[in-house]
Amino acid sequence: MILEVAMLQVREGQYRDFESAFEKAQIIIASMPGYISHELQSCLEVAGKYILLVRWQTLEDHEKGFRLSPQYQEWKKLLHHFYDPFPVVEHFEHVQPNKR
Amino acid sequence: MILEVAMLQVREGQYRDFESAFEKAQIIIASMPGYISHELQSCLEVAGKYILLVRWQTLEDHEKGFRLSPQYQEWKKLLHHFYDPFPVVEHFEHVQPNKR
Repeated sequence: MILEVAMLQVREGQYRDFESAFEKAQIIIASMPGYISHELQSCLEVAGKYILLVRWQTLEDHEKGFRLSPQYQEWKKLLHHFYDPFPVVEHFEHVQPNKR
Repeated sequence: MILEVAMLQVREGQYRDFESAFEKAQIIIASMPGYISHELQSCLEVAGKYILLVRWQTLEDHEKGFRLSPQYQEWKKLLHHFYDPFPVVEHFEHVQPNKR
């Protein structure tokens, strides 16, 4: 399982619109193959900052399956204009101390 | 429920030692009042980068209950010397669109 992490900074005054748009957008991501779960949480310390955590079965499910899909174009259209700066997205996996 | 998020950058060459130290340290955090769960995951894109996610019942459970406890001094001793730079820790809560 892979954890996708995106720290999002939404433009001032657009927080409510972003949250409404995300309500729609989450239906898209949740329908993708390899999707496990997601959560959007807002920061207590910084206005307009959010963290998006998405769990995928594999890295390819996110990077190829989702990002190269027609559904991604819809996701982009709904959400990307809210971000400033454009977020860095990274992937994480559970630490397995005996693996290294 | 509150989500504590810390992006950790561990000094080069110390990844294995950090992971072993974390094995011990996690017992401390898991014993604190208000602790719900935690996960440590390592970044696929950046060597030595980790994300620590801790779920707490309230912000005070982390900021007062844990950080002002004697147990925090143990946690610090086990882990803080691995980090460069010292991490920023932020707190998040689930977006509730009808609340705003």
